[in-house]
Amino acid sequence: MATTGHTVKAFDEDLGQLRALVAEMGGRAEAALAGAIQALVRRDLEAAAAIIEDDKKIDALEVEIERQAIRLIALRAPMADDLRDVLAAMKISGVIERMGDYAKNIAKRVHMLNDVKGIEPISILPAMARSVSDMVHAVLDAYARRDAEGAVRVAESDRTVDDFYNSIFRTLLTHMMENPHTITASTHLLFIAKNLERIGDHATNVAEMVYYAATGKQMAERAKGEDPLAAEEE
Amino acid sequence: MATTGHTVKAFDEDLGQLRALVAEMGGRAEAALAGAIQALVRRDLEAAAAIIEDDKKIDALEVEIERQAIRLIALRAPMADDLRDVLAAMKISGVIERMGDYAKNIAKRVHMLNDVKGIEPISILPAMARSVSDMVHAVLDAYARRDAEGAVRVAESDRTVDDFYNSIFRTLLTHMMENPHTITASTHLLFIAKNLERIGDHATNVAEMVYYAATGKQMAERAKGEDPLAAEEE
Repeated sequence: MATTGHTVKAFDEDLGQLRALVAEMGGRAEAALAGAIQALVRRDLEAAAAIIEDDKKIDALEVEIERQAIRLIALRAPMADDLRDVLAAMKISGVIERMGDYAKNIAKRVHMLNDVKGIEPISILPAMARSVSDMVHAVLDAYARRDAEGAVRVAESDRTVDDFYNSIFRTLLTHMMENPHTITASTHLLFIAKNLERIGDHATNVAEMVYYAATGKQMAERAKGEDPLAAEEE
Repeated sequence: MATTGHTVKAFDEDLGQLRALVAEMGGRAEAALAGAIQALVRRDLEAAAAIIEDDKKIDALEVEIERQAIRLIALRAPMADDLRDVLAAMKISGVIERMGDYAKNIAKRVHMLNDVKGIEPISILPAMARSVSDMVHAVLDAYARRDAEGAVRVAESDRTVDDFYNSIFRTLLTHMMENPHTITASTHLLFIAKNLERIGDHATNVAEMVYYAATGKQMAERAKGEDPLAAEEE
């Protein structure tokens, strides 16, 4: 199947549409992340509510991608490599959906944080979020260009995000010990930092999928960096 | 395609194998979760290390399920409903892989917790873990029996897990305020409770997939329960 020029062209067009939907979904998740952190820093409850609401569109895109993928497989009966491409689009959309959820979770915490001015890491979180946002942007770019080297760079940059996380974790714990009345707010910031760290992990997962799709090989372990859990230890 | 008796039988056998792999994978994740909590309570570093190591087998099963699913689609060219069944197996294995990761993360925290005896929620965590474990067991059962009603019950029981989480969250925060020297240990317990809560969410996600596969309809929102984030508020 899928061997005549006509069918190949139809498949390529369908796949192009599928990949465009993944790109749109990724762009939305990236925007949600940037918006959630901005809402947090500015304490903008309205912006936070809009991000929570907009997550439904990200979820709807995942459903639409799955629908189109199933249609494409059933209609075009793609062979091994093409089939892998379709399933990769589905898998990547599943990861992006989770990234969107993490951004939504950050937005949900905005209204719980009334008293963050005195908590030092609130000023580090935006820088961490920028690093994570850069990873998401770069991995979507690598996906669009089927760029294995770009995917490796994304995976490597996860170290920076993990360093941010470990630094914020330590700083927040110290802050909590010295200022027990900020424990509630600090705990929310801790979860936000953890959400950012998880988005970085997910971007790395996508990078691995992009690398595999482009080269047919698994990405070397070295590029993936360390697990930040180990460094959380005091 | 897949209309002759012979081909239908071959497809059913392949699908049966795929579903058996999902069941095996789920059983391993369930065991990892129970083992991680036991290792935590007993402070058993060796058991924790074994769980971390065993997670590789869960990951390998996901790869194997994907490989077999691709082979099945390419070879049998299943039509709409059958294709949905194959893709559901792949998606569910993706969720189980994440459940395994959460269990692994709990195991990784065992060696960071030297001083938990005085922290009250350590005694509540095993009960919460049992509820989560029951959910995972029940949803795998519902998957095996294509049992829509069972899936609804799993989704409903997520409320109990969320109640546990909210209770532990509040208790830990109070404990931290009163005993700032336990903040590091308490924070790890907080993340463990969050991991358990997330496993419950994932079991609910699987329940939704099982329900959809069995009925062709989306599960009603009511069955899914509340998001525990809202209740974290002090």
